[in-house]
Amino acid sequence: MKKILLSVLLTAIWLTCATAQVRKEIVVPNIGGYQTLKCDFHIHTVFSDGLVWPTVRVDEAYREGLDCIALTEHLEYRPHQKDINAHHGRSYEVAKKAAETNDILLIRGSEITRPMAPGHSNAIFLSDCNALANDDWRESFKAAKAQKAFIFWNHPGWDRQQPDTTLWWKEHTELLNEGCMQGIEVANGLMYSPEAQRWCMEKGLTMIGNSDIHQPIQTDIDFAKGEHRTMTFVLVKERSIEGIREALINHRTMVWAGNLLIGEERYLRPMLEQSVEVVKVERKTGYVDFTVQNHSDLTFELKKTEHDKALEYFRTYTIKPQSRHNIRVYYPKGTEHGKINFDVTNLLVAAGEGLPCSYEF
Amino acid sequence: MKKILLSVLLTAIWLTCATAQVRKEIVVPNIGGYQTLKCDFHIHTVFSDGLVWPTVRVDEAYREGLDCIALTEHLEYRPHQKDINAHHGRSYEVAKKAAETNDILLIRGSEITRPMAPGHSNAIFLSDCNALANDDWRESFKAAKAQKAFIFWNHPGWDRQQPDTTLWWKEHTELLNEGCMQGIEVANGLMYSPEAQRWCMEKGLTMIGNSDIHQPIQTDIDFAKGEHRTMTFVLVKERSIEGIREALINHRTMVWAGNLLIGEERYLRPMLEQSVEVVKVERKTGYVDFTVQNHSDLTFELKKTEHDKALEYFRTYTIKPQSRHNIRVYYPKGTEHGKINFDVTNLLVAAGEGLPCSYEF
Amino acid sequence: MKKILLSVLLTAIWLTCATAQVRKEIVVPNIGGYQTLKCDFHIHTVFSDGLVWPTVRVDEAYREGLDCIALTEHLEYRPHQKDINAHHGRSYEVAKKAAETNDILLIRGSEITRPMAPGHSNAIFLSDCNALANDDWRESFKAAKAQKAFIFWNHPGWDRQQPDTTLWWKEHTELLNEGCMQGIEVANGLMYSPEAQRWCMEKGLTMIGNSDIHQPIQTDIDFAKGEHRTMTFVLVKERSIEGIREALINHRTMVWAGNLLIGEERYLRPMLEQSVEVVKVERKTGYVDFTVQNHSDLTFELKKTEHDKALEYFRTYTIKPQSRHNIRVYYPKGTEHGKINFDVTNLLVAAGEGLPCSYEF
Amino acid sequence: MKKILLSVLLTAIWLTCATAQVRKEIVVPNIGGYQTLKCDFHIHTVFSDGLVWPTVRVDEAYREGLDCIALTEHLEYRPHQKDINAHHGRSYEVAKKAAETNDILLIRGSEITRPMAPGHSNAIFLSDCNALANDDWRESFKAAKAQKAFIFWNHPGWDRQQPDTTLWWKEHTELLNEGCMQGIEVANGLMYSPEAQRWCMEKGLTMIGNSDIHQPIQTDIDFAKGEHRTMTFVLVKERSIEGIREALINHRTMVWAGNLLIGEERYLRPMLEQSVEVVKVERKTGYVDFTVQNHSDLTFELKKTEHDKALEYFRTYTIKPQSRHNIRVYYPKGTEHGKINFDVTNLLVAAGEGLPCSYEF
Repeated sequence: MKKILLSVLLTAIWLTCATAQVRKEIVVPNIGGYQTLKCDFHIHTVFSDGLVWPTVRVDEAYREGLDCIALTEHLEYRPHQKDINAHHGRSYEVAKKAAETNDILLIRGSEITRPMAPGHSNAIFLSDCNALANDDWRESFKAAKAQKAFIFWNHPGWDRQQPDTTLWWKEHTELLNEGCMQGIEVANGLMYSPEAQRWCMEKGLTMIGNSDIHQPIQTDIDFAKGEHRTMTFVLVKERSIEGIREALINHRTMVWAGNLLIGEERYLRPMLEQSVEVVKVERKTGYVDFTVQNHSDLTFELKKTEHDKALEYFRTYTIKPQSRHNIRVYYPKGTEHGKINFDVTNLLVAAGEGLPCSYEF
Repeated sequence: MKKILLSVLLTAIWLTCATAQVRKEIVVPNIGGYQTLKCDFHIHTVFSDGLVWPTVRVDEAYREGLDCIALTEHLEYRPHQKDINAHHGRSYEVAKKAAETNDILLIRGSEITRPMAPGHSNAIFLSDCNALANDDWRESFKAAKAQKAFIFWNHPGWDRQQPDTTLWWKEHTELLNEGCMQGIEVANGLMYSPEAQRWCMEKGLTMIGNSDIHQPIQTDIDFAKGEHRTMTFVLVKERSIEGIREALINHRTMVWAGNLLIGEERYLRPMLEQSVEVVKVERKTGYVDFTVQNHSDLTFELKKTEHDKALEYFRTYTIKPQSRHNIRVYYPKGTEHGKINFDVTNLLVAAGEGLPCSYEF
Repeated sequence: MKKILLSVLLTAIWLTCATAQVRKEIVVPNIGGYQTLKCDFHIHTVFSDGLVWPTVRVDEAYREGLDCIALTEHLEYRPHQKDINAHHGRSYEVAKKAAETNDILLIRGSEITRPMAPGHSNAIFLSDCNALANDDWRESFKAAKAQKAFIFWNHPGWDRQQPDTTLWWKEHTELLNEGCMQGIEVANGLMYSPEAQRWCMEKGLTMIGNSDIHQPIQTDIDFAKGEHRTMTFVLVKERSIEGIREALINHRTMVWAGNLLIGEERYLRPMLEQSVEVVKVERKTGYVDFTVQNHSDLTFELKKTEHDKALEYFRTYTIKPQSRHNIRVYYPKGTEHGKINFDVTNLLVAAGEGLPCSYEF
Repeated sequence: MKKILLSVLLTAIWLTCATAQVRKEIVVPNIGGYQTLKCDFHIHTVFSDGLVWPTVRVDEAYREGLDCIALTEHLEYRPHQKDINAHHGRSYEVAKKAAETNDILLIRGSEITRPMAPGHSNAIFLSDCNALANDDWRESFKAAKAQKAFIFWNHPGWDRQQPDTTLWWKEHTELLNEGCMQGIEVANGLMYSPEAQRWCMEKGLTMIGNSDIHQPIQTDIDFAKGEHRTMTFVLVKERSIEGIREALINHRTMVWAGNLLIGEERYLRPMLEQSVEVVKVERKTGYVDFTVQNHSDLTFELKKTEHDKALEYFRTYTIKPQSRHNIRVYYPKGTEHGKINFDVTNLLVAAGEGLPCSYEF
């Protein structure tokens, strides 16, 4: 193929940036004096087995209201290698400028992609992805640790590697002891792992949730239906890559996957309390009406517990995102006060367990 | 980077095909004994300046109900060349298997990407894209013609090359005379060119409409809002690449862009007549009610012309896709018959001119 | 207020029927030689405590692809009575012509609206709603029975009447013994009652599911998100009101509520088998790929059971409506055959129990 | 029909207010020191020929982000009169409490519904609707004027009354001279009337735009597609009914219908300038990139005018709502400054005329 003259190129440039970008902020409260960043630490592009150019990942993040993404190409699985034979950190380089333009924090990462055990892990905050490419997986983790990476085990319940049960292997104990595991994906896409949540709480690991997206994001997530990608809420002192690293190390995360919000009670309870406000209370003969406003994009699924027989109210109730509700509680004559009890069943403070609540009036 | 053992790869394969594919057929009638195929002859991937892997283009075509696509990478503009340095027909090869699996007809093409004149042209039905890579654009067209390509001028009204007016240059006369131009894009994305339609009708060229998509399709087209990509309806004797070529040579096309349907009256009129059915006529004192069913995905915008003063009916009326309407015409006492006249303003039978219609009852 | 001259009215008529109506058929298979009709037997209008004019209910049914609706105004609760003081069957009369025009089967019904027990019940196929208006609820049921009504208990788990537990009261036994209860709502809106399903199966009652809609339907159901109203699938010998009555008496129903399909195994299994087709089987070394097409609007949620350790396949899998999926099963070398087992967890063949399935290859 | 005991009613109350309400604010700037209220002054309910209960209109207004609605039942056309025979201001009374709860300003109005001329007019800010019910239309207008009503002519181009051309009749001159016409609907639903805009500008009348909704709003407006009802932006000194009246009398309105924004240049220009911000300017060799942010829910359609031949930029360009765009202008070597000219074709400052703009850099 011959070289085409430069003059040709100068006037033939397509305006590939002509597409309008609409950013939709994710509305969740900041809590405990921290800022709540929205992060996705597990993303693929054509540089491993993903199907889009790296800059597309930045555009997607901008539109979806994310603060931070990590590109984490497989080190060991690169089906497009015949056509794209770049080094392991290349997708990060390609996306860097777009990330700066869109004010998206971009993290350099890699996916260590091994059979079970130890299965797949992501190492993020890398300075040199190529140093992780080794036949021996122990060497890969060591190289990541040497770079002070934050390392987490991906999708422990993936049926290709744990077809029936989600087990902890001795190799994971080894990684943990060696300082080569700081977190686990408790949700990968729409796959929630209660075992992973339990392990995080028992072993002092950070709960992580990611999209693990390969397709153009709209192919997997139907935004018109109000769907969102799985992500990690990270409670930072400052909005920076260093701020995220500090928060991850100190376990200040929650995971948002479908309607589920997964995390420690000390974070989930204020998320509820600062999202849902009782804006009006109207006492009438025989009942009281609570006007409730959900200021956030989160959903809250309520389920009655420990019922006071004197009161009549919902058995289950869904508080939708960004909505106003009228919740009525009936009480017997002469009684204008009481306490209703319920779990918020989709705020998981432990493996499969909702957040217990009560409300006095 | 070291070679990773095969055994690693075998169990680490991701099910990237796990995404559900929902095909939404495009409902338009077959007319004149031909089958109406839905085709897009202008598409980019990461192999030139597009942003997705070639197989994504096949998945998109399947979901959107297309029959045929052509991948038409720029010969002269390849901004990803540092990372992807394949030959010019490579994206076709990469997408071929997916096309077969999904029963999408896949055409090998190239975009000859030059300054004005002659600007950009697509050559499709190529056997060897690389033969078109030449410094001299005349050589590129010759090479395409030698392969019996069907060649069309792209987006003649593109502001980067014709900033104020859409002109025909002497180079286009030359191409036409040399047998190197068989069609013109009368619509490229949402840009309709009345000049292009006029030229097609005057010079016996085929009207073409394409998406010219670079992004993941959902980034540019909002399917939840009922939008569709711009495409060419091709009236074929048989559903095959050869059938499409025969139809293109014989000008049996219409172009669907937004609400517009652009083409010759001999095709547009039957498209209307076989899409819209009067399913019930109810005569009452003083008026008649027509129940009208639109069986197609097309919209029809009606505008009154040559009004019979005795009748009262719509000044404008929109018949939406796949819908049932009740249209009422008032007439004076004693008169139960009449003729209403209207243009279908979005069925363009000439540059900017709607399809004239009348209906007697 | 004075009488306005007729001549004024004649020319002032608004075209309130000008709105386009788009019918979206519900695609589910016919099974066992029966036709599957889509029915909603619990609907309110402004004539009790609903918020729309009766004809709106017909338009909604047409657009949503329903075959049959029953208008079932509360006999005892009519908050708009100050302004609308019509007799109890009036909403049926108002909607009748629109139903004929739209080919919607319209059933005359009433809701007997009492405190627990017996709570609320619908009587449908009434000839005279007014005969049911009695202080004594037993008289109301008797009057309904005298008209050969089909009577079913509404929303037995409604928190206003059964705040904690869903119980069967002695009054229900009395109604059952008197021939005044032929069915129960196992789903009312999105409230599924496993107790109701159990009672239907134990006592030979018909399972019913309804919207119980009061608002304009789009206020409660977000069609853009793919939601649908809760309805009853009725397996009829002929599409007529008499055909529906015969099917209801003979328990040939299923209930579709959210993703749930609730009913007897003899109906649910063929619904699955005729909705989901394995269109291609590709055996490769180490695995087999099944291309699966879901021809229906139903969702199927699969969950692995009784696992053959030699095979690797999904732990859970969702087959979306109208979609094509590629499902891969890995097997050990030398073994090209096997059996996978799973429950379809959203096809409820008993209270809370999915449909057990196995598939040999 | 017998009287049902009160005890029955007390426990049978349905929670018809249980539906979640999500308010979506309409984002448009406040300009000139005024607050921009979103108002719809032409709405029907079951109390004339509308199809919903009056409270539904308040719920709709809340969800859609409106500030104020007027219920304007036809005085002379009441097809539900057999069932609903209330006085003319009754729908206002029925909706009043809901309006207060939802902080929607509710205006009492009536539609004087006559053949042409003078056709249909709305009188709003009435204290007694019934006083307008007269055989003689002149008496109706007089009665409205006596109540200090604001009166506007509805849909002057309605095909039922002006089948071919939109004319001003001598009766309108009479109304104008008598102080019985203060405004005209320049848009009614999606019907824009350039004649009405011209008349408003010539005769010093207020431009009004309304939905004239009869159906449940979602039946006519597809919110999932980003559609909105036609409405009037009213520039008020204070958010109150009195504030709206003052603004209407002083012509401080714009009309938002589809993509069109119709009004006087003194209001439209600041709407553009305060909606669209140039957030970044990057000068490169040969071109300059403008990053443009549209902070509002308005769309702006740009079309080049008076072109400087030395510059190359868009021929047409659409700035979508709430979006960020990159607009590139090419200039010749050595020239880094220039002026681009364009009309905003959907901001109508006169009948069919866009807002002329230029931008220097």
